[in-house]
Amino acid sequence: MKVIKKIKEMRHISQEVKSKGIAIGFVPTMGALHEGQLKLIDVAKKNADFIVVSIFVNPLQFGADEDFTAYPKTFSRDTKLLDSRGVDVLFTPSDKEMYLEGYETYVELPELSSVLCGASRPGHFRGVCTVVCSLFNIVAPSLAVFGEKDAQQLIIIKKMVRDLKLDIKILSVPTVREPNGLAMSSRNVYLTDEERKDSAVLYQSLILAKKLVARGERKAEKIKAKMRALISSKPSAKIDYIEIVRKNDLKQVETLEKMKIDVSQPFRVEIKDDFLIAVAVWFGKARLIDNITLQIPKLSVSKNSKNYH
Amino acid sequence: MKVIKKIKEMRHISQEVKSKGIAIGFVPTMGALHEGQLKLIDVAKKNADFIVVSIFVNPLQFGADEDFTAYPKTFSRDTKLLDSRGVDVLFTPSDKEMYLEGYETYVELPELSSVLCGASRPGHFRGVCTVVCSLFNIVAPSLAVFGEKDAQQLIIIKKMVRDLKLDIKILSVPTVREPNGLAMSSRNVYLTDEERKDSAVLYQSLILAKKLVARGERKAEKIKAKMRALISSKPSAKIDYIEIVRKNDLKQVETLEKMKIDVSQPFRVEIKDDFLIAVAVWFGKARLIDNITLQIPKLSVSKNSKNYH
Repeated sequence: MKVIKKIKEMRHISQEVKSKGIAIGFVPTMGALHEGQLKLIDVAKKNADFIVVSIFVNPLQFGADEDFTAYPKTFSRDTKLLDSRGVDVLFTPSDKEMYLEGYETYVELPELSSVLCGASRPGHFRGVCTVVCSLFNIVAPSLAVFGEKDAQQLIIIKKMVRDLKLDIKILSVPTVREPNGLAMSSRNVYLTDEERKDSAVLYQSLILAKKLVARGERKAEKIKAKMRALISSKPSAKIDYIEIVRKNDLKQVETLEKMKIDVSQPFRVEIKDDFLIAVAVWFGKARLIDNITLQIPKLSVSKNSKNYH
Repeated sequence: MKVIKKIKEMRHISQEVKSKGIAIGFVPTMGALHEGQLKLIDVAKKNADFIVVSIFVNPLQFGADEDFTAYPKTFSRDTKLLDSRGVDVLFTPSDKEMYLEGYETYVELPELSSVLCGASRPGHFRGVCTVVCSLFNIVAPSLAVFGEKDAQQLIIIKKMVRDLKLDIKILSVPTVREPNGLAMSSRNVYLTDEERKDSAVLYQSLILAKKLVARGERKAEKIKAKMRALISSKPSAKIDYIEIVRKNDLKQVETLEKMKIDVSQPFRVEIKDDFLIAVAVWFGKARLIDNITLQIPKLSVSKNSKNYH
């Protein structure tokens, strides 16, 4: 595995690989790798013949009060893991080269970035989109792989790629969990033993929501109240948000029901409304997030619209 | 010359051309072509072997009260001109495909976009950057050519390319003028005969500024006052702005002098301060812009900094 620091050198490698007709698969990371990220690499390898992983702790996506300087760094361990996983290039640019003097260009999706983690972390997704866009322009991959644990990030990146006409396929990989259900995250190292035990409640709250929906509950407020009660039972938990949103636009819903078909529309509109149940909870110094996607099988249609089934 | 409407088809052509190792030169336009834009194409042809010109009147860069729907359209004339100039592909995407349903991704340079035309036209440069970024991603050129008449646009695009690590060389071409000095622009068709005559004063005011500087005048306010008096002498002129700014950051200056070297800095910093004198003036329905760049030859240094010469 080659370790490349300079943008120019990375570009040169990508150009050479592509000139041979070989597809590049890319996994951007901030290092401190865990099994979840290694799964992304496995998926990249299944879908591309040359794998680039970046490690770049991106200052632009951290708020002033956040853990940028404390973010865990395990570089030599990461390097060994990536090498043994069959990665071709590890790209580790410097802050200085990524953000040249007088830097001021931002890529932003204001609507999708204003809710959920974006509401708690203003500027976060602007930072993510900007750096991912730059990394894409340097690495020039055919596909890139992201984790479903960061559901909002995945949705935003997919839309950015679509909107800015980037010729890159975005693949996603289901969340990898610890035996107790805790979603793997580089930030889990911040947890004390007790917090780690308590934090299992995140996934338990999502499973509870799923069960409630399976039993017929459709009111978002009722589901959220029960999740809140369960999470709050852990003394170390401090809830940031519990939200139920429509997955295509991240808008909050009151009821988990398929959107009614508007019979005033002349043509049937394809209605995709998967729901995302997402939580963010502080345990000590760690702000942890988790989510599940729910599909509501039944299609409710208004009485006048039978012919639109 | 091929005329291509579909993004997918344009991408396919670009990939094929690039796979043969041929460099693509790109000139994005809004059509209603004039000799100024045709010069951009000549420069593209000198520097690349396959030339793509786009015609796309980008709704995102027009304000609500601006001339989006009235913007001149001379498509069949444009097509003939481009064909005769040796263009390989004319790319004319639809609004609908460029801005898909639910579009919400923006590329923005907030500082450089807040002054000059950006102050008069909020959102304009966000629209320009966003569409240019998308067009770059579709056409995948090695180089792109822009006119120096749109000085602020050129500076912003260059910085966007640098910041987002786009692997595209930006070339620029000096303003092409009518015999009376009026800078060529698609919007000149809005002018009545009288306004067209009067509008020669734009370039005359820039020449006046240049003369004043050559005679030793360094106070921006004095230069601007004389330019203002000259332009105001034309009854149809309505000044939007007259500005003198440092070209590297578009910040207003009080005096046209090389920045003093800060002797508290341990190393000599390279100081590039060309000045941009820029004007925007309404003549009837047409908002016309023009500019010149001035280089101030003498380097002023503070008394304590002789060793930094």
